[in-house]
Amino acid sequence: MTKISLIGTGNVAFHLCKVFTEQNVEVEIYGRNKVNVKKFESDFNIKNITDLKEIDPQSLAVLCVNDDQIQILLNQIDSKISVAYTSGTVSLDSLPKRENIGIFYPLQTFSKSRKIDFFQVPILIEANNEFFAQKLFDFAWKMSSKVEFADSEKRKKVHLAAVFVNNFTNHLFYLAKNQVDKAGIDWNLLNPLIKETVVKIQDLSPFDAQTGPAKRGDFSTIESQINLLESNILDENSLEIYKLMTKSIIETYKIK
Amino acid sequence: MTKISLIGTGNVAFHLCKVFTEQNVEVEIYGRNKVNVKKFESDFNIKNITDLKEIDPQSLAVLCVNDDQIQILLNQIDSKISVAYTSGTVSLDSLPKRENIGIFYPLQTFSKSRKIDFFQVPILIEANNEFFAQKLFDFAWKMSSKVEFADSEKRKKVHLAAVFVNNFTNHLFYLAKNQVDKAGIDWNLLNPLIKETVVKIQDLSPFDAQTGPAKRGDFSTIESQINLLESNILDENSLEIYKLMTKSIIETYKIK
Repeated sequence: MTKISLIGTGNVAFHLCKVFTEQNVEVEIYGRNKVNVKKFESDFNIKNITDLKEIDPQSLAVLCVNDDQIQILLNQIDSKISVAYTSGTVSLDSLPKRENIGIFYPLQTFSKSRKIDFFQVPILIEANNEFFAQKLFDFAWKMSSKVEFADSEKRKKVHLAAVFVNNFTNHLFYLAKNQVDKAGIDWNLLNPLIKETVVKIQDLSPFDAQTGPAKRGDFSTIESQINLLESNILDENSLEIYKLMTKSIIETYKIK
Repeated sequence: MTKISLIGTGNVAFHLCKVFTEQNVEVEIYGRNKVNVKKFESDFNIKNITDLKEIDPQSLAVLCVNDDQIQILLNQIDSKISVAYTSGTVSLDSLPKRENIGIFYPLQTFSKSRKIDFFQVPILIEANNEFFAQKLFDFAWKMSSKVEFADSEKRKKVHLAAVFVNNFTNHLFYLAKNQVDKAGIDWNLLNPLIKETVVKIQDLSPFDAQTGPAKRGDFSTIESQINLLESNILDENSLEIYKLMTKSIIETYKIK
């Protein structure tokens, strides 16, 4: 690709802009949030465009926006311009037809303040024609060692699993940190456990790695922990999550 | 401690037996599960006792059993024998008084087939008298660099947080693996994401590390993922967990 028109200024756009410019690809940025656009301009020394009609017809437009914005933006971008979007969930056939449209889905959690080794990030590729799919694949291959073709169905399922292993896991960390912070306990005390939780499943399947009161059928601990959550009400959700996750573990291992 | 009488043959007993024998502490084992007891005898070259009355009065009895078994066992162990138990949740004052009773709580997830660097495992110590507390502390200090005194209230809260960051996280991994396995997707594709989930919070707080559809308020993705879970019914719990975790994230970030 000679030139990328990046649409959006969120976390994904930020990390793609970083890796694209590191690859010496020319990037221009478009976004509704003008403060963010300015920041991209200065951080990456790139130009901005203020109108989607300004997109260079030779460039690849990469849409890094919320799912419900994809179709709206597509309708405003000249149908001759090649487009890739980064959504895990939107299927190709749900969108209006155009000459070249595809998906460039990086399977990672991106925050602006985190450095990411992009070469380790799996990128899932799909497109409405083989030629464009191969073009996207070759482009992705320059920046990642883990590029795969995946149709929309597969990508959706990977994205859903990603929400479980990252978004929900991180939220559990947040809830646990809240609990220990309010009790005046050093959060770092839990760090070896958190690390082992992930290292362990490099070795064992998550099914075999499970431990804890629910797995053991230690109902007296479970009751005591529910009482603790009820008497130290931080939020109703922590209690509900405790009950539901415990129920799910008990059912998984058929504990009686 | 000159001698340990280990009561129980589960994962915690196994790892304590390993670290105690590595420290050249004499260990004897007692357990209801005779197959496990035999395995301990041969794996660690230690003796077993078949009756709690046989416990050497000079030894420290370490109870690695389910919470509801602690009191039952205590009633069977001569009250002159010093006892430590490994529960995160049972408070000291809920148990019958005796000369020396305390807690030796290793904050880690233990499975028999995993090697653990015990020196990195935090151990929380409490006892019914200062002398015995110090004795347990000094004993723990030989095998871990992270020994702390913690009263029952603090320990309960740490244990609850541990259930969130380990037990529930691992169960999310299990549910996600089920999803990708059934879709014929390689589970390893999610590995860089899982690793980054943990590495990221060494740098950012879990609050700042959060990403994903719920955090972005991307309701069209959320709807699509709920549909996917409903149409590919693996189990009712995955769907309920998706809805509850999403609700909790949305409320945490006051997304509208």
